Amino acid sequence: MNLERLNAHLDASFDRHLERLREFVRQPSISGEGAGMQEMAGMVRDAIRGLGGSADVVATPGWPVVHGAIDAGRPKTLLLYGMYDVQPVEGEDWLVPPFAGEIVDLPEVGRSIVARGVYNTKGPLAGLFNVLQSIQAVDGRLPVNVKFVIEGEEELGSRNLPGFIQAHKDRLRADATYFPFFCQDRNGKPVLWLGVKGIQYFEVSCRGGGWGGPRTRGVHGSNAVWVGSPAWRLLHALATMMDDEEQIRIDGFYDDVAPPSAEDQALLDNLSKTFDPETHLAMWDAERFKYRLQGAPLLRQYLYNPTLNIDGIWGGYTGPGMKTLLPHEVRAKMDVRLVPEMQPDRVREKILAHLARIGRSDIAVHFYDGYPPAKTSVNEAAVQAMIRTLKALHGEPEIWPHLAGSAPFYLFREVLGQPFVMGGLGHGGRPHSPNEYATVDGVRAFERSVARFLHEFAAV
Amino acid sequence: MNLERLNAHLDASFDRHLERLREFVRQPSISGEGAGMQEMAGMVRDAIRGLGGSADVVATPGWPVVHGAIDAGRPKTLLLYGMYDVQPVEGEDWLVPPFAGEIVDLPEVGRSIVARGVYNTKGPLAGLFNVLQSIQAVDGRLPVNVKFVIEGEEELGSRNLPGFIQAHKDRLRADATYFPFFCQDRNGKPVLWLGVKGIQYFEVSCRGGGWGGPRTRGVHGSNAVWVGSPAWRLLHALATMMDDEEQIRIDGFYDDVAPPSAEDQALLDNLSKTFDPETHLAMWDAERFKYRLQGAPLLRQYLYNPTLNIDGIWGGYTGPGMKTLLPHEVRAKMDVRLVPEMQPDRVREKILAHLARIGRSDIAVHFYDGYPPAKTSVNEAAVQAMIRTLKALHGEPEIWPHLAGSAPFYLFREVLGQPFVMGGLGHGGRPHSPNEYATVDGVRAFERSVARFLHEFAAV
Repeated sequence: MNLERLNAHLDASFDRHLERLREFVRQPSISGEGAGMQEMAGMVRDAIRGLGGSADVVATPGWPVVHGAIDAGRPKTLLLYGMYDVQPVEGEDWLVPPFAGEIVDLPEVGRSIVARGVYNTKGPLAGLFNVLQSIQAVDGRLPVNVKFVIEGEEELGSRNLPGFIQAHKDRLRADATYFPFFCQDRNGKPVLWLGVKGIQYFEVSCRGGGWGGPRTRGVHGSNAVWVGSPAWRLLHALATMMDDEEQIRIDGFYDDVAPPSAEDQALLDNLSKTFDPETHLAMWDAERFKYRLQGAPLLRQYLYNPTLNIDGIWGGYTGPGMKTLLPHEVRAKMDVRLVPEMQPDRVREKILAHLARIGRSDIAVHFYDGYPPAKTSVNEAAVQAMIRTLKALHGEPEIWPHLAGSAPFYLFREVLGQPFVMGGLGHGGRPHSPNEYATVDGVRAFERSVARFLHEFAAV
Repeated sequence: MNLERLNAHLDASFDRHLERLREFVRQPSISGEGAGMQEMAGMVRDAIRGLGGSADVVATPGWPVVHGAIDAGRPKTLLLYGMYDVQPVEGEDWLVPPFAGEIVDLPEVGRSIVARGVYNTKGPLAGLFNVLQSIQAVDGRLPVNVKFVIEGEEELGSRNLPGFIQAHKDRLRADATYFPFFCQDRNGKPVLWLGVKGIQYFEVSCRGGGWGGPRTRGVHGSNAVWVGSPAWRLLHALATMMDDEEQIRIDGFYDDVAPPSAEDQALLDNLSKTFDPETHLAMWDAERFKYRLQGAPLLRQYLYNPTLNIDGIWGGYTGPGMKTLLPHEVRAKMDVRLVPEMQPDRVREKILAHLARIGRSDIAVHFYDGYPPAKTSVNEAAVQAMIRTLKALHGEPEIWPHLAGSAPFYLFREVLGQPFVMGGLGHGGRPHSPNEYATVDGVRAFERSVARFLHEFAAV
């Protein structure tokens, strides 16, 4: 693999590459709503076939998985994991339409594609296909054999991915799994996350019933004086789950939480030297963290503390002006981020036990599919190949024991028994928010880094 | 006034009268949203002019008031109060379109007009005009002089009515104020309310700021582990205002609450003999009351206890499926129903003082215009005329010291210094809810009762 010639080819092709990336984000694919999902799966399948690989859109009980392979006749094989679905945009206020793929000069980061999914994660996915195409154009064949698992339900908690991986275990074996992602922060610092948290998403709803309250419809608000309120009932129940200091008060919730391992503690100590709290506060639009901590102790809270988050809450009259109403139902969407050693089934049990303990088992809980956290050692060959890549192209990466976000990487680690690595150069931001973006320069850097990583990994 | 001939005329005109009532409810007039308000005010003005009265649509800083008068050359004058606005229908599930004025055979109450506003209160308003027209047709002139104040902001807390009444005080003087309303319960029992509660409606919102939390946009939910949550912050603040038994915990909130007067206590004791809790539970769709009380003690809670109600709450992601989000803002609409001796300004002060006391003054509170409760003695001539009317046409009415709902009747009592009376036969239900209705037979009975009431009042 001639990296010099390859980089020249990437540069010469960049306008075309960028257009292809914009095509990917122009195709809506909101898994929570359904629009465009089949079309997007087809685009991914065609991209793999366009590289001479085999590829199929494989049905699941939910949105299909795109499964494919390119046999390059090489000794090593990489499983490429990705997703073609994105988050909803409903109710969000965007600078440009979220599915137009427009390029905007953003004040703090420069020329960027502003579009839903461009960062999380159709931008990196399109970039990956661009790189593979350039390598084939320059070298004739890829430096490793590749397999693809591109799912369409990551934003729904990857609910059918476990079944797919179990069913196709033998066809997915590889030396490592790679998840391409833009991993530079807004100052350009490359970051490498060695794992992910797990997640348990759920929805609670409280409505009138045997305990009181209106059962099937909101009623005139004056009745709140003698008919029970599902809104107050839910609020009080939720308030018992979390105290005013945001410490979770569900019995036994912290029982399974493991402290950092020795390897993680060393990474944490190292990380605290370069960790820049101001960059994170700016990214997340906050004036301060909720803990009065700094450095390693703050990072330890961030990475090893579970959350109980209210993603959304709604009920009753929410329109303009006044309407007096005693609502019959109030609902909330919530999630728990699972840190090392926590398991989703245990979390589910504890939430239900808590509601029973406070006498609120009438509050209905719908659990979405959850999954545990997953980690890879910094010593794995694939991880070392990524570290060498980032060092060669940019400089020492900032290594995080894991990410605060979630992805179902336990499937690669535990079911397929292979290490995983995520990353690449490039910068994006505002995932799950309006004006999600990826910088144009970042896409260019990303493509070079993926090419280099494949080279490094093949050479081990 | 020949009541026999008049009743015959009402009967003969009933099909036409019903059509006119349906025209009133077919004209949308949602004050909270604005559609149709001017048209509806015009219809009311034209109805008064059609009776030979003077009438104007008088501008206010909000929706106009329709002001009119018919001088019948009689010794007594009645001020007719009403409203031409209705509640929103957004997000509600109706059997028939809410502004079609359709007639439906409802399982428990029979043939009914199902439409927004038909009960609360364009049905009674149209019925009133029908009656006045029939009296003129039969007798040539009305038995009393009438004045009209028909406002368009009752559902917004009558925010510009005080200014209007103050400004036109001298032109509004009358011997009493009458508010026409369908006052039979679903079993046919006529009910007479001698007053109303006051109300203070408000909106609270909590967003990220100096205390922490995202300030301008929702951010990726994984940040909930280290960035504060406006949702939890609002929930905890609200939970301190009301305990789990729905007792209000705002300092001094009950200070101004007066016990029933001697007259009210006598009414309450009497009322408890005919009060039927099952009918009320059915009307408000509940299995039980929130107090384990019966008879007079339950009624005392209902009528003399203030409420703190959550009319609506919303924030974050409320669409289908999963979206992990740390919302930057969560809001709630709330109201306090004021019982005798409570004043809206004192309520506002106490709410703000409570937020300050718990260190949550960052939670913004927007107060809508509020007003105090109002009561009329059972011994007033206008009230006695209504009691005689109901007795003559149907039987002994159930007399309530006041209603749990709110209306700005303090303006008539305190500013104009005149007694008020509300009521009439007729039955409707589901105010502020989907499938608001009024029975067709009830409209017929209402018209007879209004005619009789005018006769009784004139004869005093």
